[in-house]
Amino acid sequence: MGPLITLTTDFGQGSPYVAQMKGVIYAHCRQAEIVDITHGIRPQHIREGALVLADVTPRFPPGTIHVAVVDPGVGTSRKLVYAEFGGQRYLAPDNGLLTLVSQLAPRGEVISLERPDFWAAEVSPTFHGRDILAPVAGHLACGLAPAKLGPPLVSLLHVPIPQPRLASDRALGEVLLIDSFGNLITNVRVDQLPPAVPASEVVVECKGRTIVGLQDAYELSPSGTLVALVDSQGRLEIAAVRGSAAAVLSASEGTAVVARWPAGK
Amino acid sequence: MGPLITLTTDFGQGSPYVAQMKGVIYAHCRQAEIVDITHGIRPQHIREGALVLADVTPRFPPGTIHVAVVDPGVGTSRKLVYAEFGGQRYLAPDNGLLTLVSQLAPRGEVISLERPDFWAAEVSPTFHGRDILAPVAGHLACGLAPAKLGPPLVSLLHVPIPQPRLASDRALGEVLLIDSFGNLITNVRVDQLPPAVPASEVVVECKGRTIVGLQDAYELSPSGTLVALVDSQGRLEIAAVRGSAAAVLSASEGTAVVARWPAGK
Amino acid sequence: MGPLITLTTDFGQGSPYVAQMKGVIYAHCRQAEIVDITHGIRPQHIREGALVLADVTPRFPPGTIHVAVVDPGVGTSRKLVYAEFGGQRYLAPDNGLLTLVSQLAPRGEVISLERPDFWAAEVSPTFHGRDILAPVAGHLACGLAPAKLGPPLVSLLHVPIPQPRLASDRALGEVLLIDSFGNLITNVRVDQLPPAVPASEVVVECKGRTIVGLQDAYELSPSGTLVALVDSQGRLEIAAVRGSAAAVLSASEGTAVVARWPAGK
Repeated sequence: MGPLITLTTDFGQGSPYVAQMKGVIYAHCRQAEIVDITHGIRPQHIREGALVLADVTPRFPPGTIHVAVVDPGVGTSRKLVYAEFGGQRYLAPDNGLLTLVSQLAPRGEVISLERPDFWAAEVSPTFHGRDILAPVAGHLACGLAPAKLGPPLVSLLHVPIPQPRLASDRALGEVLLIDSFGNLITNVRVDQLPPAVPASEVVVECKGRTIVGLQDAYELSPSGTLVALVDSQGRLEIAAVRGSAAAVLSASEGTAVVARWPAGK
Repeated sequence: MGPLITLTTDFGQGSPYVAQMKGVIYAHCRQAEIVDITHGIRPQHIREGALVLADVTPRFPPGTIHVAVVDPGVGTSRKLVYAEFGGQRYLAPDNGLLTLVSQLAPRGEVISLERPDFWAAEVSPTFHGRDILAPVAGHLACGLAPAKLGPPLVSLLHVPIPQPRLASDRALGEVLLIDSFGNLITNVRVDQLPPAVPASEVVVECKGRTIVGLQDAYELSPSGTLVALVDSQGRLEIAAVRGSAAAVLSASEGTAVVARWPAGK
Repeated sequence: MGPLITLTTDFGQGSPYVAQMKGVIYAHCRQAEIVDITHGIRPQHIREGALVLADVTPRFPPGTIHVAVVDPGVGTSRKLVYAEFGGQRYLAPDNGLLTLVSQLAPRGEVISLERPDFWAAEVSPTFHGRDILAPVAGHLACGLAPAKLGPPLVSLLHVPIPQPRLASDRALGEVLLIDSFGNLITNVRVDQLPPAVPASEVVVECKGRTIVGLQDAYELSPSGTLVALVDSQGRLEIAAVRGSAAAVLSASEGTAVVARWPAGK
């Protein structure tokens, strides 16, 4: 039972680049166990990577090493970092990928990877995931102290994550991401609504369509119905029962979503 | 060498929802080993999930825990179940996903999951895979007795699986599924044909095209040829050599396929 | 910590055929650890499989067993082989899949798989991956001596891999493969250029477009710019910064690429 290492990249599912990283990790630490989070982040889409890391990584056992590679700036002066948040360990370019995990949980050590002793002998300027992050992950999994990797780093780069505008009777949000079912996940967290408002009195508007009430489960309405509910991360979600809300509404990332409720609650 | 847990879902390859389930399983039972069967079941397509479970799971070592999540009814009154068939162990919604595995092998314990002691502290009504099945799989993998999960269940729900109509000189079947090569897998099992009929005398018809004889291997005919053979599960299959029979025939699931043979054999 | 087995196939990501192979491997050697290289090789595309095996497998720990199934000739007289190159172990059809790995590293044992003792009791003529290679991989992982699998084999089949034509001032190459970012990977290796030529003086031509100089990293040029660089395997690559060079140039596999440099260097 070796140390767990997860991988999150924009290389595409089944990319041989991912497999190269796995080979390198095993070559450095044979007892590591590697778990794919996803390789389906859209190319160079740092914000999507940040969202996935925040939704998924806190569910792993503490001490898990999460390697994330969405790295359009590979080979430039951008740094690579080791960072700890909430007991999880991260290896990633310092380009905003860790924006959300850094806001969710207390910070531990943060290190700038600057000591090539733990990198590949030859480092390709276009594949630091394989030649720096993978060998470093292997060394860490087999017990290397993070402080050996480089000097501490004071602050990490952040990418902007759109926040809803909140008023006394409404939240003006937007579609944050669309899942594989075509469900629209918004940036409105349900804990941002007044707790006294009953779910049946929340009205959700998107693309000119109005949905009255938040329901508990998809199939409480007939197939095709647009419904609003709370997603499994506590966010407002719009779904089409047994269908794709994204297709029904022609919605995409950034599409406006408004949640309204009776003022005074 | 921990207990094996497999995952079969309609979440899409690379879905972060799958990764959340893996994090939860490892957090509950660090020594579990997780194997993906597929996450490419078409959304809400219970019958496809049932077919995949029947083709794949009996090949795993006895005692493997197979977690299946194709669950359009999540959050409604549909039950979640633990069930044993042929020495394999299953965790799934009781919506027909286990139809075929339950017909293939002797039944062991079947339990309705009703004791929240082994679930997540907070259960999202839209993601029982993560909040009920994953922690339960972890507990089972680390040794929990299934009887602790809830009361026995007498019968499981089944989904209809289309059966061929058999006559003395023909079988009227249909395309059951199309694989990634575009091969048409039918619901006619070759052991349903009279054993005395030589393979060369079986005639297969689909979409107005006629194929004479069952052959042993794809490349015994030139590229592009439509051929009929026995698939690796013993079913009648139509293929286009180095091509896609689904494209050549414009066939889809449910397309009629007839197998004929000389009467009296 | 069991023996590592990798899988490379053209079955498609998430194919249940892959999962059947995994079940069989675990059933034969429970302590094996299985790693997916890719299942996204284009159907029957042996050359692509050969390239992926050459790029990826040498990075794994010595002794890893690499099972490769791109096998249009399954069920015909083509052989199945066990082969060792550079300390890595391979199981594959003898159809050219091992062309490149056999050229890269010293050869060890090469065996023709002919002893059915270590195969499934019943072998489907259309799925030797599951019924021959998977059980053999399991037996090897649990310690079987390769010599028990069959007689030695003197030579392996090779597929043609296009080579660039080299002159004193240019290399006439072509696109070898296109990665998931749309980068064009060519068959010109940078070590085939004269070492005295500075990167800034190499001129790359493709589809009527000219790129002056090889640069070190993608983001040293603005988004959308076509750039030439050395890929992470030492090959000449054409990329579009934060975009797809394949789309920008309407390039595909086989598209001509010329690299020129000042004569006399």
